[in-house]
Amino acid sequence: MKHESSFTYAKEDEVSNKKNVNYQLPLFEKMLGNTENFQDISELFKMLITKDRASLAKAITLVESTHPQKQKKSQFLLTKVLKHLKEENQHSIKAPQSFRIGLSGPPGSGKSTFIEVFGKYLTGKGHRVAVLAVDPSSSTSGGSLLGDKTRMPELSRDLSAYIRPSPSSGTLGGVTRTTNEAIVLCEGGGYDIILVETVGVGQSEFAVADMVDIFCLLLPPAGGDELQGIKKGIVEVADVVIINKCDGDLMPAARRIQAEYTSALKFMRPRSRVWRPKVTCISSLEKNGIPELWNTLQDFQRSSFAAGELISRRERQLKLWLWNHIRDHIMGRFEKHSTVKSLMPMMEELVVKGHVTPGLAADYLLRQFITNSGEKVESL
Amino acid sequence: MKHESSFTYAKEDEVSNKKNVNYQLPLFEKMLGNTENFQDISELFKMLITKDRASLAKAITLVESTHPQKQKKSQFLLTKVLKHLKEENQHSIKAPQSFRIGLSGPPGSGKSTFIEVFGKYLTGKGHRVAVLAVDPSSSTSGGSLLGDKTRMPELSRDLSAYIRPSPSSGTLGGVTRTTNEAIVLCEGGGYDIILVETVGVGQSEFAVADMVDIFCLLLPPAGGDELQGIKKGIVEVADVVIINKCDGDLMPAARRIQAEYTSALKFMRPRSRVWRPKVTCISSLEKNGIPELWNTLQDFQRSSFAAGELISRRERQLKLWLWNHIRDHIMGRFEKHSTVKSLMPMMEELVVKGHVTPGLAADYLLRQFITNSGEKVESL
Repeated sequence: MKHESSFTYAKEDEVSNKKNVNYQLPLFEKMLGNTENFQDISELFKMLITKDRASLAKAITLVESTHPQKQKKSQFLLTKVLKHLKEENQHSIKAPQSFRIGLSGPPGSGKSTFIEVFGKYLTGKGHRVAVLAVDPSSSTSGGSLLGDKTRMPELSRDLSAYIRPSPSSGTLGGVTRTTNEAIVLCEGGGYDIILVETVGVGQSEFAVADMVDIFCLLLPPAGGDELQGIKKGIVEVADVVIINKCDGDLMPAARRIQAEYTSALKFMRPRSRVWRPKVTCISSLEKNGIPELWNTLQDFQRSSFAAGELISRRERQLKLWLWNHIRDHIMGRFEKHSTVKSLMPMMEELVVKGHVTPGLAADYLLRQFITNSGEKVESL
Repeated sequence: MKHESSFTYAKEDEVSNKKNVNYQLPLFEKMLGNTENFQDISELFKMLITKDRASLAKAITLVESTHPQKQKKSQFLLTKVLKHLKEENQHSIKAPQSFRIGLSGPPGSGKSTFIEVFGKYLTGKGHRVAVLAVDPSSSTSGGSLLGDKTRMPELSRDLSAYIRPSPSSGTLGGVTRTTNEAIVLCEGGGYDIILVETVGVGQSEFAVADMVDIFCLLLPPAGGDELQGIKKGIVEVADVVIINKCDGDLMPAARRIQAEYTSALKFMRPRSRVWRPKVTCISSLEKNGIPELWNTLQDFQRSSFAAGELISRRERQLKLWLWNHIRDHIMGRFEKHSTVKSLMPMMEELVVKGHVTPGLAADYLLRQFITNSGEKVESL
């Protein structure tokens, strides 16, 4: 908890930056270990930055792998891509090279149709668009089972667009790590707009909000009581609320919902000095409101970049993910610990039935975990 | 994350309950270790359940101690109190013995005055009221520095009320554990209404919402844009929003705010099958609206108890705290680890500046943590 709220950053200046480079090189080597036989990755990197789609697909697959040697290779590749992006970025100091747009919405809000229409609009304006999905529950949710080619038939044939099917399995921690790293690879592959969408349910909406520059919530024209499957608190983290299906018979309802959300958003604590959340109406069906929405998103990008908020948001997210990965990994080890695993159901029962306090049960389980930690360290 | 959202409980039936008791006794002993020299705690327990105020104070101090032997004694005491409460509860199956009410509100909402007036109203009706504070940031916030006797002069002289000054220091994890355990001790000491208030700022509001039967948010008559210090998302977890200072010149503003919050709450996802969040206006100054508020709270208690939600909420909270304590403890160990501590600033800098991915930095730090875990295990 505490790592999510308190951050302090030093201003990056040339001198300290050069100093860093000196101590980084040996540290990188130490962190990555032996990389002598990684020529294939150097080749992959060279192809990736020439905007080769097949290399991007291969690179993301590498990042998704849980095989230790492949994970090491993926880190080697990512470090190269990060360095490349840093060098590229030196020539464009007016704006960041990419715009990371998060999109979430309950089932029935029309996400796939919206991405299809919005994506085509953007490629039509000369952008290169990558679509990534965060879906830790793909085995139970219907969305991804349809297949991304069926979901977005036109965009998937568009040569300026790259749609990555959702990783087929994994915990939220694993999927978020993969998605965060896939964003970097897409940027290395020359995509300037990265759309990150949630397909599944659960905590993934908040995870997406923490990996993008702007978080958009897509809603059908329906009020709070009617809406199913929308996460508690998610409206409060939205930078833009998009009311979809603002067409035909639904038009009056959509306008009413727009007014109600605009009023409701006034009660949310502002998160930016330069941006107040906006509510905008669109129709994916009639392709109405798309240019206006894109203007709104660009307004956000311009003003938050000028105020330094875009950069500080990305820095805050990087730090947050560092801590999230650590927490996920350590808790994963705890949960998989054989003694803990065998004791946990009984402990939970004792706690829930009020026989022992959560504190005593936690102490006891932690003692088992720490004194029996001779278990083999896996996946490190 | 995942433990906060998915719970399944088996219905408690007599047979399985009796079975549990059999395997619990040796386990308790094993969990607590040697308790032969704990006669003083048995004495303290006997005094506590006779509603002796000094014993309650002493018991809470014991629970707040970080001394290992005292922590062991406090667990011995808590287990006794839990057992006592279970036995007592068998005679009152119509309602739980206690009503745990959470109260949070931004600075300027008039929390102390409200608790003074509301507490006196409840003791006047024959209730015994305990007031506990959650304040992990007491050294920086003004609230607790005033001292609880100054904050609530009348209630602190009331023999049917017990006001516990906020623990003077500690992390959020430490303070929440202490508060959770103090609630149990107050119930053992015969208090039937436990008011848990947040004094500090930060994440403590959510922590309080997770340790009570009903969570009330106290607000001054001011809209979202004017309100400072109200946590993002906190309105969504409130069961009752209380607009204070509904008197004199502020009356029209208070009524307007009430209408606006009532409308805003419609956009929040309902968390209960039997309860929709209410917005109620009161005046602590003119003592208006207090009986009506108490009726609202009792309505909540009755309906959610009848629907089984009160019990399942408490069970869910116990499980949540078990996992929270584990997470806090393990992350605390990680942060205090000497190698991690010395490497962390550099790692954060490398990540924030985009030289390495959060995943690679996390892997590297975790490797240091695990391979150098020969450090002495403290406070277990």
